Amino acid sequence: MVTHREIRVSTVGQDDLIDLTDDVAAVVASTGVMDGVVVAFVVGSTAAVTTIEFEPGLAHDLPAALELIAPRHGHYEHEARWHDDNGHSHVRASLIGPSLTIPLVKGKLTLGTWQQVVLFECDTRPRERTVIVQVLGE
Amino acid sequence: MVTHREIRVSTVGQDDLIDLTDDVAAVVASTGVMDGVVVAFVVGSTAAVTTIEFEPGLAHDLPAALELIAPRHGHYEHEARWHDDNGHSHVRASLIGPSLTIPLVKGKLTLGTWQQVVLFECDTRPRERTVIVQVLGE
Amino acid sequence: MVTHREIRVSTVGQDDLIDLTDDVAAVVASTGVMDGVVVAFVVGSTAAVTTIEFEPGLAHDLPAALELIAPRHGHYEHEARWHDDNGHSHVRASLIGPSLTIPLVKGKLTLGTWQQVVLFECDTRPRERTVIVQVLGE
Repeated sequence: MVTHREIRVSTVGQDDLIDLTDDVAAVVASTGVMDGVVVAFVVGSTAAVTTIEFEPGLAHDLPAALELIAPRHGHYEHEARWHDDNGHSHVRASLIGPSLTIPLVKGKLTLGTWQQVVLFECDTRPRERTVIVQVLGE
Repeated sequence: MVTHREIRVSTVGQDDLIDLTDDVAAVVASTGVMDGVVVAFVVGSTAAVTTIEFEPGLAHDLPAALELIAPRHGHYEHEARWHDDNGHSHVRASLIGPSLTIPLVKGKLTLGTWQQVVLFECDTRPRERTVIVQVLGE
Repeated sequence: MVTHREIRVSTVGQDDLIDLTDDVAAVVASTGVMDGVVVAFVVGSTAAVTTIEFEPGLAHDLPAALELIAPRHGHYEHEARWHDDNGHSHVRASLIGPSLTIPLVKGKLTLGTWQQVVLFECDTRPRERTVIVQVLGE
């Protein structure tokens, strides 16, 4: 059985971290799937999906680490070619990746207590994001 | 067909790299699934799952690279808030990610000869880890 | 329904970025699957699969960022043990990861307009790469 839903979220731009866990769990619950997997995939090349302990400290620390590898005001060939300001956003998003696959057991996501599914906005400006949620199972 | 198993491993703490390949392959073999995918997902927000050539050199080199982006003794808002010592562990785990999906062909994982499935412990202390292994296929 | 195909590509070595989107979409179209997921997985431990806006600027910027965390001419225990030159290749590939899972809706990959599926060659020499494409769905 395959079920497809979309989660739409508004981000405030650079470094916004949004907890999707309840939304993804609600999609899973609505399908009635007990055993399987759920895939969360963000459409677009300047945002990423991963898991993290969702708390304000790490919402600061994750972008601070990425600033060391893809600094916001560094030189990017992408920006030189396209005259925009989000070369670092693309690099950060590609490193973390757009996709996450989580097992479902007895209808529940197998997350730890302090492990949340998050959308990480890497772009510099506010964006309307679509996260595709695909549930496969029985 | 969906089959769910759990692999439990004890880690020695910071930078421990554990080869899960044989355990994951054994789960797949026990299901009889010939074509499909296997998902390995570590529960918790301070460990990660990826592939690597499992040998002692890279077990040193991977954490050494992460030390440049999320140093063990750097400043973390997470640590300031929670009075612990594993801000870097969360950042590293979120960057690599908790999840890996591998195709199954003729009942085998499609890994390269020098490509192993590994659990990478990012936390500072020894942990008991649960890796969920979900097999989907026919 | 599970369908398995392989995409074979020749890379020119270090930092080669190859757009797999059309090949993956063609595999999906050939299966007739309308709802499900497609998994792209690169065999081997010195290449990675992710999404990026496929344009020459970012093809420069992504490896430039990785050079800050895993420099090509840095010291690697892997190289000291095996007398080769690709310690950084392994580290980069493990950080990005070998695997990508993309939802399929109405027979199409749910990518953004400027979001392509890419193989990122991290090894120093030209390689023949096999990307396993597994389609699950109905």
